[in-house]
Amino acid sequence: MRYELYYWPSIQGRGEFVRLALEEAGADYLDVARLPHGTAAMMSFLEGKSTDRAPFAPPFLRAGKLVIGQTANILMWLAPRHGLVPKSEAARIWANQLQLTIADWLVEAHDTHHPLGAAFYYEDQKPESLRRAANFTGSRLPKFLGYFERLLAREKGGWILGRTLSYVDLSLFQMAAGLRYAFPRAMERLRPKHPRLAALHDRVASRTRIAAYLGSKRRIAFNEHGIFRHYPELDA
Amino acid sequence: MRYELYYWPSIQGRGEFVRLALEEAGADYLDVARLPHGTAAMMSFLEGKSTDRAPFAPPFLRAGKLVIGQTANILMWLAPRHGLVPKSEAARIWANQLQLTIADWLVEAHDTHHPLGAAFYYEDQKPESLRRAANFTGSRLPKFLGYFERLLAREKGGWILGRTLSYVDLSLFQMAAGLRYAFPRAMERLRPKHPRLAALHDRVASRTRIAAYLGSKRRIAFNEHGIFRHYPELDA
Repeated sequence: MRYELYYWPSIQGRGEFVRLALEEAGADYLDVARLPHGTAAMMSFLEGKSTDRAPFAPPFLRAGKLVIGQTANILMWLAPRHGLVPKSEAARIWANQLQLTIADWLVEAHDTHHPLGAAFYYEDQKPESLRRAANFTGSRLPKFLGYFERLLAREKGGWILGRTLSYVDLSLFQMAAGLRYAFPRAMERLRPKHPRLAALHDRVASRTRIAAYLGSKRRIAFNEHGIFRHYPELDA
Repeated sequence: MRYELYYWPSIQGRGEFVRLALEEAGADYLDVARLPHGTAAMMSFLEGKSTDRAPFAPPFLRAGKLVIGQTANILMWLAPRHGLVPKSEAARIWANQLQLTIADWLVEAHDTHHPLGAAFYYEDQKPESLRRAANFTGSRLPKFLGYFERLLAREKGGWILGRTLSYVDLSLFQMAAGLRYAFPRAMERLRPKHPRLAALHDRVASRTRIAAYLGSKRRIAFNEHGIFRHYPELDA
């Protein structure tokens, strides 16, 4: 089956978590909004013109008759079809739980530059961003990193669910890569405390399909329109 | 099976979405943190002392050997065991998608009084709250309400998934109740545009088990420590 991924065409954003899973799986997919007229096609779904079950926001994935929204939901549906999660129910519930925790972490990373919401430009909420970012790099970031590092320390295989790679590892790679881009100083300072997460990042980056993807034009570069933004003043 | 729910004992918060599902199901459960020594038991799980799969934060549910965290994940696991979601995979994926959209909405409701994060008191982020809340009541709230109202208009049975109540309806009830508590003026003003959501709220509230629950001491009253807080100055 050829999947259709719908997401904003100029940023990694939440769509990137799905792209990484599709790429690691070697799945056949179209990144629709990056094609001619793709954004209009995406809007048609959001407006309920192309489906009865309109998603609230991108990303969403079309798989035959199914139109699936919400990043963690898409990944949960895709993963067992492509060997990206163990078969047992307990493992899948745990994977979904971790993915939702990553989603919470991602919101907090985003909110460092948009504490007052997406309605205002960063330039219109800079003092607020400085306060929120200081709390993020000083308190929340170490807490999230520490949580996943401790989980990795309990597992033997170096992956977050144990001996085999899952979609949650791909998402942890993306978090590490994005946070290193946005907060290089804070991440470098915290790095000695999280050797397992750093190793996981490198292991994911060197997988054959992921390495090919990261070197291709399909991988959009980090930029200051996405979730992870490098504003040096926020990286205390 | 007797479930054990772990959540902060003095607020509705995210735990309430799980409580409503357990109550509607007539499930046997303990609200552990509200019992003597319950908060210490909860902390033991969060610190990884009582489980290898420590949740990042409450709520979490213990069901036999399983310890399940993340509200939407708990509900997705509970619902098929208690007839709170249709059996088809497509319906369950859709229900989870809607629940995750409600979770996003909930974060935005919370952030009206904590735009700079949970590290600072409301009193220390009041001007920022005023800006964020004005955008919430003026733009985001109507957008979320309109989304769910449109979905309800497409269904025949008055429930969000059609003819039978699901856990997503219970969560929509909670959103409506909480938003009416926090933003009575904004919600009253918007009410004529969302008759189906208002009807759904009343229908859930009048269900036998839910009505009994809402009238009992098990239902914690809304208060200014929870997610939905009534600060009149934020209700423009």
